[in-house]
Amino acid sequence: MSGNTFGHTFTVTNFGESHGPAIGCIIDGCPPGMELSEADIQIDLDRRRPGTSRHVTQRNEPDAVQILSGVYQGKTTGTPIALLIQNTDQRSKDYGNILDTFRPGHADYAYFQKYGIRDPRGGGRSSARLTAPMVAAGAVAKKWLKEKYGTEFRGCMTQVGELPIAFESWDYVPNNPFFAPVADVQALEDYMDALRKAGDSCGARIRVTASNVPVGLGEPLFDKMDADIGYAMMGINAVKGVEIGAGFASVAQRGTTHGDSLTPEGFATNNAGGVLGGITTGQDLEVSIAIKPTSSIITPRASIDSQGNPTEVVTKGRHDPCVGIRATPIAEAMLALVVMDHALRHRAQCGDVVPTLTPIPGSI
Amino acid sequence: MSGNTFGHTFTVTNFGESHGPAIGCIIDGCPPGMELSEADIQIDLDRRRPGTSRHVTQRNEPDAVQILSGVYQGKTTGTPIALLIQNTDQRSKDYGNILDTFRPGHADYAYFQKYGIRDPRGGGRSSARLTAPMVAAGAVAKKWLKEKYGTEFRGCMTQVGELPIAFESWDYVPNNPFFAPVADVQALEDYMDALRKAGDSCGARIRVTASNVPVGLGEPLFDKMDADIGYAMMGINAVKGVEIGAGFASVAQRGTTHGDSLTPEGFATNNAGGVLGGITTGQDLEVSIAIKPTSSIITPRASIDSQGNPTEVVTKGRHDPCVGIRATPIAEAMLALVVMDHALRHRAQCGDVVPTLTPIPGSI
Amino acid sequence: MSGNTFGHTFTVTNFGESHGPAIGCIIDGCPPGMELSEADIQIDLDRRRPGTSRHVTQRNEPDAVQILSGVYQGKTTGTPIALLIQNTDQRSKDYGNILDTFRPGHADYAYFQKYGIRDPRGGGRSSARLTAPMVAAGAVAKKWLKEKYGTEFRGCMTQVGELPIAFESWDYVPNNPFFAPVADVQALEDYMDALRKAGDSCGARIRVTASNVPVGLGEPLFDKMDADIGYAMMGINAVKGVEIGAGFASVAQRGTTHGDSLTPEGFATNNAGGVLGGITTGQDLEVSIAIKPTSSIITPRASIDSQGNPTEVVTKGRHDPCVGIRATPIAEAMLALVVMDHALRHRAQCGDVVPTLTPIPGSI
Amino acid sequence: MSGNTFGHTFTVTNFGESHGPAIGCIIDGCPPGMELSEADIQIDLDRRRPGTSRHVTQRNEPDAVQILSGVYQGKTTGTPIALLIQNTDQRSKDYGNILDTFRPGHADYAYFQKYGIRDPRGGGRSSARLTAPMVAAGAVAKKWLKEKYGTEFRGCMTQVGELPIAFESWDYVPNNPFFAPVADVQALEDYMDALRKAGDSCGARIRVTASNVPVGLGEPLFDKMDADIGYAMMGINAVKGVEIGAGFASVAQRGTTHGDSLTPEGFATNNAGGVLGGITTGQDLEVSIAIKPTSSIITPRASIDSQGNPTEVVTKGRHDPCVGIRATPIAEAMLALVVMDHALRHRAQCGDVVPTLTPIPGSI
Repeated sequence: MSGNTFGHTFTVTNFGESHGPAIGCIIDGCPPGMELSEADIQIDLDRRRPGTSRHVTQRNEPDAVQILSGVYQGKTTGTPIALLIQNTDQRSKDYGNILDTFRPGHADYAYFQKYGIRDPRGGGRSSARLTAPMVAAGAVAKKWLKEKYGTEFRGCMTQVGELPIAFESWDYVPNNPFFAPVADVQALEDYMDALRKAGDSCGARIRVTASNVPVGLGEPLFDKMDADIGYAMMGINAVKGVEIGAGFASVAQRGTTHGDSLTPEGFATNNAGGVLGGITTGQDLEVSIAIKPTSSIITPRASIDSQGNPTEVVTKGRHDPCVGIRATPIAEAMLALVVMDHALRHRAQCGDVVPTLTPIPGSI
Repeated sequence: MSGNTFGHTFTVTNFGESHGPAIGCIIDGCPPGMELSEADIQIDLDRRRPGTSRHVTQRNEPDAVQILSGVYQGKTTGTPIALLIQNTDQRSKDYGNILDTFRPGHADYAYFQKYGIRDPRGGGRSSARLTAPMVAAGAVAKKWLKEKYGTEFRGCMTQVGELPIAFESWDYVPNNPFFAPVADVQALEDYMDALRKAGDSCGARIRVTASNVPVGLGEPLFDKMDADIGYAMMGINAVKGVEIGAGFASVAQRGTTHGDSLTPEGFATNNAGGVLGGITTGQDLEVSIAIKPTSSIITPRASIDSQGNPTEVVTKGRHDPCVGIRATPIAEAMLALVVMDHALRHRAQCGDVVPTLTPIPGSI
Repeated sequence: MSGNTFGHTFTVTNFGESHGPAIGCIIDGCPPGMELSEADIQIDLDRRRPGTSRHVTQRNEPDAVQILSGVYQGKTTGTPIALLIQNTDQRSKDYGNILDTFRPGHADYAYFQKYGIRDPRGGGRSSARLTAPMVAAGAVAKKWLKEKYGTEFRGCMTQVGELPIAFESWDYVPNNPFFAPVADVQALEDYMDALRKAGDSCGARIRVTASNVPVGLGEPLFDKMDADIGYAMMGINAVKGVEIGAGFASVAQRGTTHGDSLTPEGFATNNAGGVLGGITTGQDLEVSIAIKPTSSIITPRASIDSQGNPTEVVTKGRHDPCVGIRATPIAEAMLALVVMDHALRHRAQCGDVVPTLTPIPGSI
Repeated sequence: MSGNTFGHTFTVTNFGESHGPAIGCIIDGCPPGMELSEADIQIDLDRRRPGTSRHVTQRNEPDAVQILSGVYQGKTTGTPIALLIQNTDQRSKDYGNILDTFRPGHADYAYFQKYGIRDPRGGGRSSARLTAPMVAAGAVAKKWLKEKYGTEFRGCMTQVGELPIAFESWDYVPNNPFFAPVADVQALEDYMDALRKAGDSCGARIRVTASNVPVGLGEPLFDKMDADIGYAMMGINAVKGVEIGAGFASVAQRGTTHGDSLTPEGFATNNAGGVLGGITTGQDLEVSIAIKPTSSIITPRASIDSQGNPTEVVTKGRHDPCVGIRATPIAEAMLALVVMDHALRHRAQCGDVVPTLTPIPGSI
C-alpha cells in the first residue's frame, strides 16, 4: 500500500536511504532449488556501481551484496531472500545547502509536502541509490529466467542529450562507460566533458530488450505485460516517457503497416514490441525510455525555502551529470523483474507455459 | 493476480466479453455518503459510446448503466458498487472469418497461445468494449474528487495519423466527434473519410490532464503517481507510448531548463507534468499517449491459422478506423482512477491531505 | 483494501445487499478449459437456499445463478466469471422497527458507526444472504479441485445449542434439513420447534473436512493453510471460534500424544488436522467452527436508538432461529476457496504439485 | 503471494532462518512523524527473548534490534523501517539427528514435500524464532495506537497443559516467567519441572485483549476484524484454535443471552468480544488461543526418513517444553498489527475515525 514492494508473485520489498547505514531488499517467491551465490548478483551491481568513470558520481561505493536468508548450501530454499548492501561513503555535510530548500526538478518539495519530514542527506529515500537493490533482485530474476527459458535481457543508450547514438552492435556495450552500442565513444566523451564544465546536466534515451520470452505471459485486463512495463519503467528515477515497440511512431502509422504479419516462418516485423493484447507473443520485448536531466546541478536556480520564501539553490555534493548513463542495468533489471513476475503469475492460473500451438519462429 | 482488478484502495474489478450477455464492474472502497445516481455515470458513458458519428464503429449500443448495489436512498454506503451494462447489439456472425485465424496486430494469437481457448466474437475479452465499465467507474472517481478537492479531468486529441492538431481551446472539445480542441475539424473529417475509403486505419495521440490535484499524492518507491499513470495508460487497448510532462523531449533538455523553478507565486514551468519523485506537486498532471492503428481492417493481411498454416485475413465486422477517436474519455477515466486510488491510499498512511507548507499557487 | 475480495490467485469479489436488486460475484483466475455450466453451481446453491424446511427462514428465494462471462461454448476461458443472483422475495416493510435502532448482537451499530449510513433492509450488506455468491464460487473451486486432484469437501453439524450430535455416517447428512450425520433427527426437530416457540435462537457447531488434499499447499510465514482457514471461517457470519485438528483439546495434550507419528503406512493419527508448519501434509483437513445464536429474535431486548437514547428492540421479519443450520454448505465452500487459492498459489512459486518424496498413504 | 508479508496498509515483510546470519523485517506504511528508537522496540523483544528462565529454551540470544532505515533524527519519515536482529547463538550441530528425518508434529515433512529442500538447522524458516521480528513490528504498531487512540494490548496465560489458571490481576503478569495473572506460580513451576524431567512437552491457552479500540474498524465482507484476528492468531507457530468473545461457548448460548444489550451507559456484556459484523464496537477485543505441545522432544518417536523408511526420532537441541510460555508477547504483537492495519485501512475509505454517534461508554 505504501508502494515499496514490487511485483505480485516474485515480490521485492525495498528499504533504505542514500545516507543511512544500509540499503537492501527482501525477495519473496523465488522458486526453490536454484543455485545462487553473492557473485551471481554482484555482476550486475558492479555494472550500475558509482565511481567507475569521470562521467558519473564520484561517490565510491563497493555495493557489496550480502545474502542474509533464503539460500542453504548454495541453493534457494523458497523462503525470502534478504539482500543487504552497506552504505560506506556518505558525505552528508555536502547537503547543508539543501536542508531547508527545494531543488527545482527534485523530489525535495513533494516529499516535504507529503510527509512533513524528509531526510535531505543525498536525497534520502528519493535517491537513485535505491535502484541498487533492484538491480540485485533483477539479477536473481535474470538467472532463473535464463536457466528456465533461455531468456536474456540487454540494454543500451540510444541518445544522450541532443546526440543520437546509432546502433552498431551489442558487443560494444560493455566496452564503454555509457553502455553505448558503438565502437567509438569519443563524441560522447566530449559531450559529457563539456556539459560537466558548464555545470549543467542532460537527459538520455535508453533501449532495453528481452529475447526468448515465453509466449503467453501477461494478465489482461489491467496487469498486461506492457502495462506492467509502463509501471516499472516510469517508476525508475527520472524517467518521463516509455514506449513499447513502435511507440509514438505508431501514431502516424497505418493499420496495414503497423500490424505485424504472421507467417509460418515467424512474425514479419515487430511493431508490437513483443506484446499483443497485453500478452507476450514470443517476439523480443522492445522498450524505450526517456530520462530527464539530473536535477542536482551546480548552476544556481530560483527556488523557495521551507517557509515559502524565495531563495536560490546550488547543489554541491557528488552527482551524475547524466543519470541516464547508469540507467541501462537498472532498466534491464526492472524489465527482468516484470517478466519474472509474469512468468510465475502465469503458472498460477495456467500451469507451466505450454503454448497451445507450436509458436512460430521468433517465439519460444 | 489474474489482472482484472484495478487499484489498491478504490478498486475496480471488471468482467465481460464483447458479445456476452453483459459487461460491468464492481467498485470497492468508495467513500460512504456521496450522492450518486445512474445519471452521474451515464454522462461519461455517452461520451465513449459507439455509433455516434460515421468515424467510429456503427455498433449501436446504448451502454445504459444499472447500479446493482452500494447505493441506498441515493447515497453511497461504503459497500461495493456493482455496475451492469447489457450488451444489446452483438452480430457475432460477422466474425466467422476470424474464428480460426489470427489478425495481425490483434490479441487473437496471444490469447490463443496463453489460454488454449478464446472467445472470438468481437475480440471477446480483448475488445475495447471492456473500457466502458472503466469509464463508468471513472465517473464515480471524478465525482468524488471534484467534490472533495475540486479536481477536474480533461482530455483531447492532439494528433490523428500524420495530422497534428494544434491546441486552440478546451471549449471546442465537446463540439466535434474527435475530441479535438479546435474550432474547425474539416481537415480531420476529410482525413478520416479518405482512410475509411482506403480500408485502412490510423493511430492517434491523446493528451489528458488533471487540475486541482492535491499535493502529496503518490507512493514511492514503486507505486509512484507517474508509475501508476504509466501502468494505467499503457493498459488501455492499443496504447504503445506514454509521456508525463516534457516526456521524450526531456532527453534533449538541460537540467537548467528542465527543472521547474519554484517561486512564491508558483512553479515557473511544468516540465515535470505535476509529479516529482513520484509525488504530486499540485501542478496540473500532464499526460500524453500514443495509440496504434486499429488492427481489424478490411484490407487483406498475411497471417496463419490455428494449425500454423499460412492464410489471409480480412476483418469485416464493425470497427473503429481509429480507436484513438473514442480514447479521450477512456484516458480521462483511467487518470481519474489513478488519482482517486492515490487520494485514498494517501489517507491510510498520512491521514487527510494536509500539506506541510502552504502550497505555492498552482498547487492545492 | 475494503475487504470484498477473497483470495489471492482464485479471487472472488462479492457485491450486493439483502434487499437490493441482485447479489453476485466475480471470480478471477479460474484456470481455462474446464467445463462449467449453471447447473454445476446450482447444486450447492440449492443446499444453502432458504425456505426449504420450517427450521430456517421462510424467505422464498430460488437463488438461480446466471453466468454473465468467462465461459464460452461450455468451457471456462480464463477470463473473469461473473455470477448474478436476482433477489426476488424482499419484504423490506418487515424492518420498519429497526430502521432507527440497533439489534443487540447484530452488525447494525458497528455499520452505523463506521460508515455513518446503513441499508437496514434485511441487514443490508451484513446479511448472511451474501454467503450465497460464496457458495456459488465455492462450487467452481470444488469442481476444479475434484477433477485435478480428486479433492472432496464434506461438512456436517456436530452440535446444536446444548445438544451434541454424535457422528454416525456422512451418508445421513443429505437426508435431513440439519446436515446432521445421524439417522434419526427427531430430537433435533423437537429442540428447534421448542426454541422457535420460545421466540429465541441458538448456536451450532459445524465440522468441515477436505480429503485428497495435495501435500505441500500453504505459504508460510503468514499465509499458512491454517491461517487462511482461520481467516475464511472467522469471516463467515456469526462464527466466533475456529479449530484445526485437535484444536483446543491440544492444550491439555502432551507432545508424545499430540505429534502424529509418521509410518510408511501413513500418519498414525491426525491431531494436526492435515497441516504442519502451515503446509498441508496430505492428511484430511479437519476444521470445526462455533456459530453464535441468531441476533434477530422476536423477544424484546434492551438497546439504544440512533440518537443514543434507550429503547427496546423486537425483530420481526423472517429469520433463521439457528443460522448454523444452513452454515454447512457455506463452510464447505469457504474451505474449498482456501484450498483452491493455495493450489494455484503453489503453482506460481513451485510449479505443479510434485511431492519430493512419494507421499505416505493418506497423503496424495 | 509467497506469504511472508503481513498486512495491507501497515505491512511487515519478514525474513530469516533460525540459524542464518540474521533475521528481521521491513515495515512499510508507518505514519510519518512518530518518535521511534530502538529502545521502544527492545522492550517487547526482551519479553519474548529466550533463555530468561529454566522453563524456556536455553538458547542465549540478546535479540538486539537495529533500525536500518525509515527513521531520521529520531522520527519516522514515512519510508520503510527495516529492522535487523543478528543471530548469535546458533548450535547447528545439535540438529545432526534430524537432517534426514521428520519430527512428528513438526513442519519438517511438509516443508520437504513442498520445496524439495529445507534448512534443518533449528527448524530453519519454520522456527518460532521468526516471531521475534513480528514482536518488534508489533511494538511500533502499539506505540502509534497508544499515542493516537490510547489503545493498549495485554495478554496472559490462562491454562498450561491440564492446569487452568484463574485470572487474578494483570499486575501479576510481568512478575513471573509464565505471563500468568496470578500471585503464586509455584504450581506452574512444579508442573513444568515435572514435564521437563519426563522429556515431554505440553500445550497452553493464551488470552489477549485490546482496550480503547476505536469503533468502526474492520472491512466486511471478508477482511473483518475477527477474520483477520483468526488469520493472525492461527498463523502463530503451534496455534490450533482461536476464539473471539464467547467463542465456542456461544454454541450452547441462546440469542437472548448472547446478544450484548446496548444501554446509554454502555454494552451490558461482551459476548461479542468487541466485534459485530466484522467491525469493532469500541468494546475490548477479547481473543483466546490454543497452543499445541512442542513437537521437538527428547522422547523417541516413530517416524520416517527422507527415503520413506521407518526410523525413530529424538530431538536434542534446546527447545521450549511449552512454546505457549513465550507466546503471550507474540499474540499481543499480532493483535496490535491487525488493529494497526485496520486503523490505517479505515482511513483510506472513511478518513480519520469519526464515529457517527457518540460512542457509548466502553467505546472510544
